[in-house]
Amino acid sequence: MNWIELVGYAGSFLSAITFIPQVYKAWQSKSVGDLSIWMILIIIFSTLLWLVYGFGMGSGPVILANLVVLSLSLVLLYFKLTFKQ
Amino acid sequence: MNWIELVGYAGSFLSAITFIPQVYKAWQSKSVGDLSIWMILIIIFSTLLWLVYGFGMGSGPVILANLVVLSLSLVLLYFKLTFKQ
Repeated sequence: MNWIELVGYAGSFLSAITFIPQVYKAWQSKSVGDLSIWMILIIIFSTLLWLVYGFGMGSGPVILANLVVLSLSLVLLYFKLTFKQ
Repeated sequence: MNWIELVGYAGSFLSAITFIPQVYKAWQSKSVGDLSIWMILIIIFSTLLWLVYGFGMGSGPVILANLVVLSLSLVLLYFKLTFKQ
């Protein structure tokens, strides 16, 4: 594995965990009024596309990263629909 | 271009525009208390890694999508540091 691939894996790892702090903050504060529901919906739809792409290309990292992001964004959507605005 | 590549381009387009609704909402409401600064910092750092990867691989779509996300996340960081919490 060359250094560029390593940078790519580091980038996909960070992309995968991007929403963990936001899920944690929303869960702690129970306040999600400032979060854009359109952002959450776009994330869900884009990760579904990336999952189709990942399975189509047989790319493990793309599938794994986007499964993580999809789960986190579904949790954010749940919080957005249930917590106080 | 086969259908899988098309799905990949659609995914990268949506990934690129993910934060536009959040930037718009924050700009309109001037309220960013519910946004996690750690999420914003992770986005900035991950897009920098993706840019290094994109230039290293000579991949136009990766560079373009991540330039858009990087600019939007820098705007979000500015809003987070200046608007009321």
